Amino acid sequence: MTVRIEERAADVALLDRTATVDQAGERRLIEWIRAHVPSSSESILVGVGDDAAVLRPERNALQIVTMDALVEGVHFDRRFTWPADIGHKALAINLSDVAAMGAAPRNAFLSLLLPPHMTCGDFEDLVGSFLAAAAREHVGVAGGNISRSPGPLVADVTVIGQARPRRLLTRGGARAGDELYVTGSIGSAAAGLEWLRAYGRPVDVEDALIVAGEMSGPLRRFLRPDARVRLGSLIGRNRAASACVDLSDGLGDAVRQLASASGVGVVLDAGALPIEPAVRTWFERHGRDPVAAASAGGEDYELLVAVPPRARPRLEAVGKLARGVALTRIGVVTREPQLVMRCEDRDGSIAQGFAHF
Amino acid sequence: MTVRIEERAADVALLDRTATVDQAGERRLIEWIRAHVPSSSESILVGVGDDAAVLRPERNALQIVTMDALVEGVHFDRRFTWPADIGHKALAINLSDVAAMGAAPRNAFLSLLLPPHMTCGDFEDLVGSFLAAAAREHVGVAGGNISRSPGPLVADVTVIGQARPRRLLTRGGARAGDELYVTGSIGSAAAGLEWLRAYGRPVDVEDALIVAGEMSGPLRRFLRPDARVRLGSLIGRNRAASACVDLSDGLGDAVRQLASASGVGVVLDAGALPIEPAVRTWFERHGRDPVAAASAGGEDYELLVAVPPRARPRLEAVGKLARGVALTRIGVVTREPQLVMRCEDRDGSIAQGFAHF
Repeated sequence: MTVRIEERAADVALLDRTATVDQAGERRLIEWIRAHVPSSSESILVGVGDDAAVLRPERNALQIVTMDALVEGVHFDRRFTWPADIGHKALAINLSDVAAMGAAPRNAFLSLLLPPHMTCGDFEDLVGSFLAAAAREHVGVAGGNISRSPGPLVADVTVIGQARPRRLLTRGGARAGDELYVTGSIGSAAAGLEWLRAYGRPVDVEDALIVAGEMSGPLRRFLRPDARVRLGSLIGRNRAASACVDLSDGLGDAVRQLASASGVGVVLDAGALPIEPAVRTWFERHGRDPVAAASAGGEDYELLVAVPPRARPRLEAVGKLARGVALTRIGVVTREPQLVMRCEDRDGSIAQGFAHF
Repeated sequence: MTVRIEERAADVALLDRTATVDQAGERRLIEWIRAHVPSSSESILVGVGDDAAVLRPERNALQIVTMDALVEGVHFDRRFTWPADIGHKALAINLSDVAAMGAAPRNAFLSLLLPPHMTCGDFEDLVGSFLAAAAREHVGVAGGNISRSPGPLVADVTVIGQARPRRLLTRGGARAGDELYVTGSIGSAAAGLEWLRAYGRPVDVEDALIVAGEMSGPLRRFLRPDARVRLGSLIGRNRAASACVDLSDGLGDAVRQLASASGVGVVLDAGALPIEPAVRTWFERHGRDPVAAASAGGEDYELLVAVPPRARPRLEAVGKLARGVALTRIGVVTREPQLVMRCEDRDGSIAQGFAHF
């Protein structure tokens, strides 16, 4: 008896959106991804489908590797998050880590744990938005893995970036006298999540943005955060900072990480913290101190940057190149190993960030 | 008020083995890993602890990236598997993918999803055996991620390897007339798992190996598989093959992958398949055809290699270098797109492998 190898059907890239991933089967899901990944970029020699991906690294470059997962029931709740948000965010949180090293992302890998009863429609939305976000940032999706999950939906992503030697930004380079800057604004994602918890999930993102009114900005920041990819890479390339860390677990956590790794202290100016007016109002209306709430809130994916006095002109030049992204001076680095939030009337402590355990 | 940054206690690398990971906290778990990772190798510029890891790639080298996960309830059952087995195996399955590309592994990254009630003892055993396996294979552990899991324990691993250009082995290079070889033996891991299911989990691996008697070999192959790291790299470096794929989902699956990617057919010789006597006896005693059972059984992490006639002397030379690992000729590649198992009396089909969905 001779068994013919299955011919590749012309509709191999089509999924029945109402079928479950269990019914579609692993091969079909991988075929769908392969058909939707843009044709390999120059740096990807072998992409989705073989035992492993093959990359051609550039000469005289360092490689930055990061991995971060979104886990259902821990990092997202499907009552408040669409599959497309999960795909977008799973990439963004990793791009943010690469940006925080002052590096540029090059390749991404997606490892999915899928509950068998997830629909193919949800699968398409999740992977599709991951691929769309990667394309926008010129990141080549080179491979990954699909496994069944007996419990939560998980999107675990690895991103490889690159930077020139001596252009890297670790957490450990801050020195006394450096000034601290933060990109964009803080607390918005936390306020966006609180809005979702209070009012529930609208029909889709577009609908949510209309319904939420002035909270639509914070809502988008929670559902579809954009990492500071260009700014991080520019700061690194132009040696505009001595240290950098992203705000994935909140400003309070980021400040602790930077201070601890650099062996320094930090004094923040409460009045200088960039908090959107709608977010400030939201926290106040719910009886919370906006500074504490915004510093404790995670998922902003902004960058905290330590800037030596001599590098300030370079940071200003970078700020002009990255139009549209605010860079706000929020404090200073001290020799004394302290963590102080300086308010008008008194000094206070800096709120703790989010911890997984 | 000034808050002092916590001093790093001298016992930061100590965990209470009976406490849960929830009680220990994420920071303490990461500190434990950092304290137990060997000091950075030359290729790791920034390791565990920053936003991302930084690697220094070698010149004129391709990079091979693979990610593969072990999920509780899907790939392992804690009734039959010790945490140390999971750590060992999570690395081995990825090293096997790199070996199947003809490449040498360089760096590994470990992403853990931990159920909060897992003990720190189990955490130490899992991560410790991962690190030990990495050290044995000269693979630098450069980073990773820890998240809480509301369900299964998951070890998701990314490995980066390297190979010289034109020394790569994909699945798609096999041509009619090539001979097929397989490393080691097949079906052992499947028989080992069946033994565990029949007799339950002994106290520890050492105990299991005594209790299992002649099945101790298959048992070890299931619990602590060793990827063909050296052999795969040697085959690639010496251009001793035209295509290669690993047997993670069984010989039947590997043959299909190779045939499909290369656009060829395969005829296997049932009598030539390397099956350990104890494994053959095990399958026969349980009323199963040893050839079909061994071809269908997953988790062998052997390599299936296609060898053009002109490359045979190079394969023989490689076989001599990799002493202790058998290389058995088991069939041929055909132009006709068929999948045939040639037996003494008749031709049959080749067993299907394992599919996640």
